[in-house]
Amino acid sequence: MASEPFTFGPYKIDPAEVFYTTSLSFAMVNLRPVIPGHVLICPRREVKRFVDLSADETLDIWLAAKKVGGQLEHYHNASSLTFTIQDGPQAGQTVPHVHIHILPRKAGDFKENDEVYDAIDEKEKELKQKLDLDKERKDRSFEEMAREAEEYRKLFL
Amino acid sequence: MASEPFTFGPYKIDPAEVFYTTSLSFAMVNLRPVIPGHVLICPRREVKRFVDLSADETLDIWLAAKKVGGQLEHYHNASSLTFTIQDGPQAGQTVPHVHIHILPRKAGDFKENDEVYDAIDEKEKELKQKLDLDKERKDRSFEEMAREAEEYRKLFL
Repeated sequence: MASEPFTFGPYKIDPAEVFYTTSLSFAMVNLRPVIPGHVLICPRREVKRFVDLSADETLDIWLAAKKVGGQLEHYHNASSLTFTIQDGPQAGQTVPHVHIHILPRKAGDFKENDEVYDAIDEKEKELKQKLDLDKERKDRSFEEMAREAEEYRKLFL
Repeated sequence: MASEPFTFGPYKIDPAEVFYTTSLSFAMVNLRPVIPGHVLICPRREVKRFVDLSADETLDIWLAAKKVGGQLEHYHNASSLTFTIQDGPQAGQTVPHVHIHILPRKAGDFKENDEVYDAIDEKEKELKQKLDLDKERKDRSFEEMAREAEEYRKLFL
């Protein structure tokens, strides 16, 4: 299990929620997943905008996203992936730290495909609110998230 | 101006619509843009899924996306960017050739941020239909697209 401190903007992320790491990036399970396997990948360095990533960080985070996407698509018996970066507040970014949303997609998971994005956007707003009031964990318990991360971690051994 | 043949899935792309190229990727203006500056970046090699890109192609396309995004955000006086890959048919991909959607975003460009995705998804469906019936170019003329590409090309001299 990753043991170092991970931060997501101003928030500290418990290493138990992190399931894949590289030298410059980490992948974590999501407090507010839209569908099973909806995870986030961040650069370790706190960088607000995508354009601010170095070339090394850009390669590292997208190789990580490719690997994580491929494994989670398979794990969840999905057949496609949605990759999205809401890069800046006017694009729906709520936590000022670059993060790639990855979602394994299946036929019929949403009535219309575009509904997945409404959900990503809504959940990103809720994520920020939830991280702000971290006490109030009605939706997903830490234990549930740690179990999910534990399962995913096995995919990258 | 780029002079080599560019293809997007089964479709031939006129070089006049291409405004930025690298050794492994090219950026083109969009037949069905959702908002001004909505462009597509593709690997030159026809690859259906993101996971099929080589490490070199992955780095190349995302460095290109970073550069194009940064320049078009500035050019359009925007303040954020949306980056999205609909990777596979169940994620809304209509043309089986990896492509990154890049959209410069501004405050108030959509009533709710998530509406931008409904539009991307809808326009991607229309793009495919339009490429299929290429004669019928009611919406954007080739000349209009070539002019837009010409403007953008100047940003990368």
